[in-house]
Amino acid sequence: MTSPAFGHEVLAAVLGIRDGRLRVLLWERARDPDRGRWALPGGGLRADEDVETSVRRQLAEKVDVREVAHVEQLSVFSDPDRTPGPRTIATAFLGLVPSDADPVLPADTAWHPVDALPPTAFDHAAIAASARDRLRAKLSYTNLGFALAPREFTISGLREHYVAALGHPVSATNLQRVLTRRDLLAPTGETAPSGRAGGRPAAVFRFTDRTLRVTDAFAVLRPPAQAGTAS
Amino acid sequence: MTSPAFGHEVLAAVLGIRDGRLRVLLWERARDPDRGRWALPGGGLRADEDVETSVRRQLAEKVDVREVAHVEQLSVFSDPDRTPGPRTIATAFLGLVPSDADPVLPADTAWHPVDALPPTAFDHAAIAASARDRLRAKLSYTNLGFALAPREFTISGLREHYVAALGHPVSATNLQRVLTRRDLLAPTGETAPSGRAGGRPAAVFRFTDRTLRVTDAFAVLRPPAQAGTAS
Repeated sequence: MTSPAFGHEVLAAVLGIRDGRLRVLLWERARDPDRGRWALPGGGLRADEDVETSVRRQLAEKVDVREVAHVEQLSVFSDPDRTPGPRTIATAFLGLVPSDADPVLPADTAWHPVDALPPTAFDHAAIAASARDRLRAKLSYTNLGFALAPREFTISGLREHYVAALGHPVSATNLQRVLTRRDLLAPTGETAPSGRAGGRPAAVFRFTDRTLRVTDAFAVLRPPAQAGTAS
Repeated sequence: MTSPAFGHEVLAAVLGIRDGRLRVLLWERARDPDRGRWALPGGGLRADEDVETSVRRQLAEKVDVREVAHVEQLSVFSDPDRTPGPRTIATAFLGLVPSDADPVLPADTAWHPVDALPPTAFDHAAIAASARDRLRAKLSYTNLGFALAPREFTISGLREHYVAALGHPVSATNLQRVLTRRDLLAPTGETAPSGRAGGRPAAVFRFTDRTLRVTDAFAVLRPPAQAGTAS
């Protein structure tokens, strides 16, 4: 190659529902540049690793990666001026942590609402927004709710997760109907207190599947006896 | 950054239906490494351009980019040994050219069936396969057929495009039903000869929309008065 060489970093926008809001995991930079601003977990790609290996290694420094239910490549961020100093290209990932996972965080790291971020470093706010938008889009045509919700939930509890993630109202009745029709929910046979005084106990559900799939690929476009899978 | 610097190239897997098959645009390498093998269009990222600018510049050297109806980032390919010599990371793109566009190609460039590639350079066969898989997945939950089909078509002609792209049989009746139900097709008011002796003329259609959108985002998850958009 006669082209120039560039630094390459891997960044993870890890999202989860915490205290009823969609939040992103950020750490506060202790050094310049952008000292005191909040950044996504990540760092430089090593010579011997690909970007997938790198993001898992770097995430492990901030959070127990066993708690991350889903990881996918988001996009390359490559504006020549996205960081000061020598040009660095970023491969950004989306990660999702279910709300019943409670990873221990380092002292410099916290969950911040994606729609009310603290001062952020470099282009990390744009990367977090891109992760939020990807999540919202995929919630509408995949089973990706499994990676946000706890392992078992009532419809009312699940609705709160969709409302927080999507940022707009969702009817519990309609949510149950569409997820059931698409075979995404299975009753566990258990019930949970309704939460309202005198309310009937609510049925408990889980997602039927905990790997990503497109939930309503045009049936006529599907090859015989094969479910759609998401890219 | 204390991390090492790497070369960065941008590659485009440009797909289109030609002679009834899904094909990818490849050029034959005239120089080592991998001389005589077939490669995706692309090349080194310049210091002053981002990857989107770069892929359009480099595509323009192989094909009239006005003919490319859709371009999206596919994925980063970053295996440390994906090319010989100094390590080079690739940002790969998917491009789609409608079948009624007939771009003039350089002498070293040709359309090859994605499922019967000639000997390919480096990891370009894996990138082409990834582009094919992304296209197949998106055809099943978006309106992306607009970027493969000619501007106007009969249902029978459109069906041939879906069959070629998906690689399995599709019923014309079912295809018309599902695309119509999702408001993807509009009749032009014209008819075309049926192609069969004595057959009735067939209605001509076009896609209602020529930018990517998710065609069946769960209606209950959609914010009021806003259509789903694809990530």
